[in-house]
Amino acid sequence: MATFGFVQYDAATPEVRAIYDDIMATRKVDWVGNFWKALAHDPATLKRTWDDTKQVMASGALDPLVKEMLYLAVSASNQCGYCIASHTAAARKKGMTEAMFHEVMAVVGMANETNRLASGYQVEIDERFKTP
Amino acid sequence: MATFGFVQYDAATPEVRAIYDDIMATRKVDWVGNFWKALAHDPATLKRTWDDTKQVMASGALDPLVKEMLYLAVSASNQCGYCIASHTAAARKKGMTEAMFHEVMAVVGMANETNRLASGYQVEIDERFKTP
Amino acid sequence: MATFGFVQYDAATPEVRAIYDDIMATRKVDWVGNFWKALAHDPATLKRTWDDTKQVMASGALDPLVKEMLYLAVSASNQCGYCIASHTAAARKKGMTEAMFHEVMAVVGMANETNRLASGYQVEIDERFKTP
Amino acid sequence: MATFGFVQYDAATPEVRAIYDDIMATRKVDWVGNFWKALAHDPATLKRTWDDTKQVMASGALDPLVKEMLYLAVSASNQCGYCIASHTAAARKKGMTEAMFHEVMAVVGMANETNRLASGYQVEIDERFKTP
Amino acid sequence: MATFGFVQYDAATPEVRAIYDDIMATRKVDWVGNFWKALAHDPATLKRTWDDTKQVMASGALDPLVKEMLYLAVSASNQCGYCIASHTAAARKKGMTEAMFHEVMAVVGMANETNRLASGYQVEIDERFKTP
Amino acid sequence: MATFGFVQYDAATPEVRAIYDDIMATRKVDWVGNFWKALAHDPATLKRTWDDTKQVMASGALDPLVKEMLYLAVSASNQCGYCIASHTAAARKKGMTEAMFHEVMAVVGMANETNRLASGYQVEIDERFKTP
Repeated sequence: MATFGFVQYDAATPEVRAIYDDIMATRKVDWVGNFWKALAHDPATLKRTWDDTKQVMASGALDPLVKEMLYLAVSASNQCGYCIASHTAAARKKGMTEAMFHEVMAVVGMANETNRLASGYQVEIDERFKTP
Repeated sequence: MATFGFVQYDAATPEVRAIYDDIMATRKVDWVGNFWKALAHDPATLKRTWDDTKQVMASGALDPLVKEMLYLAVSASNQCGYCIASHTAAARKKGMTEAMFHEVMAVVGMANETNRLASGYQVEIDERFKTP
Repeated sequence: MATFGFVQYDAATPEVRAIYDDIMATRKVDWVGNFWKALAHDPATLKRTWDDTKQVMASGALDPLVKEMLYLAVSASNQCGYCIASHTAAARKKGMTEAMFHEVMAVVGMANETNRLASGYQVEIDERFKTP
Repeated sequence: MATFGFVQYDAATPEVRAIYDDIMATRKVDWVGNFWKALAHDPATLKRTWDDTKQVMASGALDPLVKEMLYLAVSASNQCGYCIASHTAAARKKGMTEAMFHEVMAVVGMANETNRLASGYQVEIDERFKTP
Repeated sequence: MATFGFVQYDAATPEVRAIYDDIMATRKVDWVGNFWKALAHDPATLKRTWDDTKQVMASGALDPLVKEMLYLAVSASNQCGYCIASHTAAARKKGMTEAMFHEVMAVVGMANETNRLASGYQVEIDERFKTP
Repeated sequence: MATFGFVQYDAATPEVRAIYDDIMATRKVDWVGNFWKALAHDPATLKRTWDDTKQVMASGALDPLVKEMLYLAVSASNQCGYCIASHTAAARKKGMTEAMFHEVMAVVGMANETNRLASGYQVEIDERFKTP
């Protein structure tokens, strides 16, 4: 179980409940994931993390699906079990097809391989890559 | 300098030169990056890595720019200096604007933060995320 | 189950038993954690790891609680499930309150985020940080 | 050089300048580190990251020096060159002695070693560590 | 369960079945591991990954057992649960004794410790190590 | 420069000098690497780290060259610049040929790729891998 268990909606303070409400409204769902319910023992971190997530994942120069796949790619690279499961679900809800998932994973695998080859062979950065 | 230095085009075997030619033709450039020139001391790994990269990064369910940004996101998350420099350049060449770069980095930062919060709080995966 | 299972006290050699005894005496408990019982199949590594841990975690310029929270922070950052669970317990036993735990995690999350932003933006080290 | 170079104070927008001013006032210094000047090309991320840092690193259940050492420990564990340099400097300014630095590093090294031993030996979490 | 479940032999396309057959023939076993059955939803990645693995892990300048232990060492260092379990089994089948396993883990632990000490103390590379 | 600079032989205490002497005698060289000279500001960590390294890297069930390549593999996987440089040199001195180096790197790359595929696809451990 999560270190301090979960703060369920009914047991939450008005402050936490307002964040839960905003999560559900923003995502158009009627539930809140375990991640948020575990963080809710620390309302300051819950609020900061949710506000940041909402800002960062909103539509901008990149659309929300691309952002969600970037999130998934980093989570798979970091091998965070919870995050892989939740962001796979989130990305699929936003339109990631099975074929897209496979391609995300293929890139993640490839990047992890070549990152180590570049470091292992001690490759210097090409001058042309240094110019902004 | 890279562990065994670089294999320059003029000094390359026909086998390696053919791969360099394919890299340049595929990318429509007249140069080959240091990464490939460092790997060329091992033609089998050079060939395998290039063939894989060409296959994985080609247009498919995801377009090449999205793939390049996923590659960059993983490289930034892994903190591989060479890969960040080269894939930032590659993504910009494929159309990544400065605004898009900022959003890629914002997601990378956010994902790295929340990956640790999820693990640190020992959050169990929600049942709803377990169904394929 | 652990790769070679656990070496229980009753089945342990005198050499291993002496280390178990020292672990229990040092920590003032009557049990030994699974980590040590899994390592005990290799008495040399068991002894080296315990001796090092005992030395490193002892009171010094930093008090044991701060050290335990540093250990927890690294374990959460590395996403080691076993280590997060065991060092959360150890830190709480040494006086880490729930509020302190939350702050440890907030710093871990923040550091993981900014580590990637610093690398992703290829930020050079300020001259002023280079002077010892 | 950082991917987009640095935004110097004189060239900054009022929005960015206000953040620089707050960084300097909070830290009681007359300069801003390269990290912030590289982020300033994206004022939203600059603001969010600074606001979060200010909140997370403020005195609370843990004092600022302990927080700074936790930050340094994570940065050393992640091997982020910029972050190690800047947070070593920051921690020393807040009172970290050389002896304290050595102990932070000893714990970081030890935790990284045992994290892998715990994972490599596939050690199950002790039942006693599962109770909140 | 794996994200898309497993592709069992009887339900596989001829293309996937041919790869399964090659895996079993190469390894002289009559079963295929879950890893391959999860990847099989993406036949291109299944084929590329298997072909690469077969090439990389074949006898060469290093014998297959040493390669398998290198694979295990990296997997333990990355804390990939599936990979630790499968490559421990694979290495034992190829002749890794219990004593050899312990020594692999001892090196993995030690390297993870000293990697962070080298980074944390910001140690410059010795000139003598820079000459190829 | 390393955080506290280097402790040169002539300026070292007898305690540190004895460790330097043992490093040189064990390795049959007349110099000490920067890593040790940076650690020497903390004689306790210098001694512990050297004693552990000497024990772990000594000939046992695995020969020293295999151990050195395992160390290199982990260091490349962790992307520790100093460690890659120093352990490439150390392994070559112990007999690693260029062909062997290439194969070490190929395995490191491959393992890093498949580690993420296994995690990204959320593959469960096969029952057959769970039996010790």
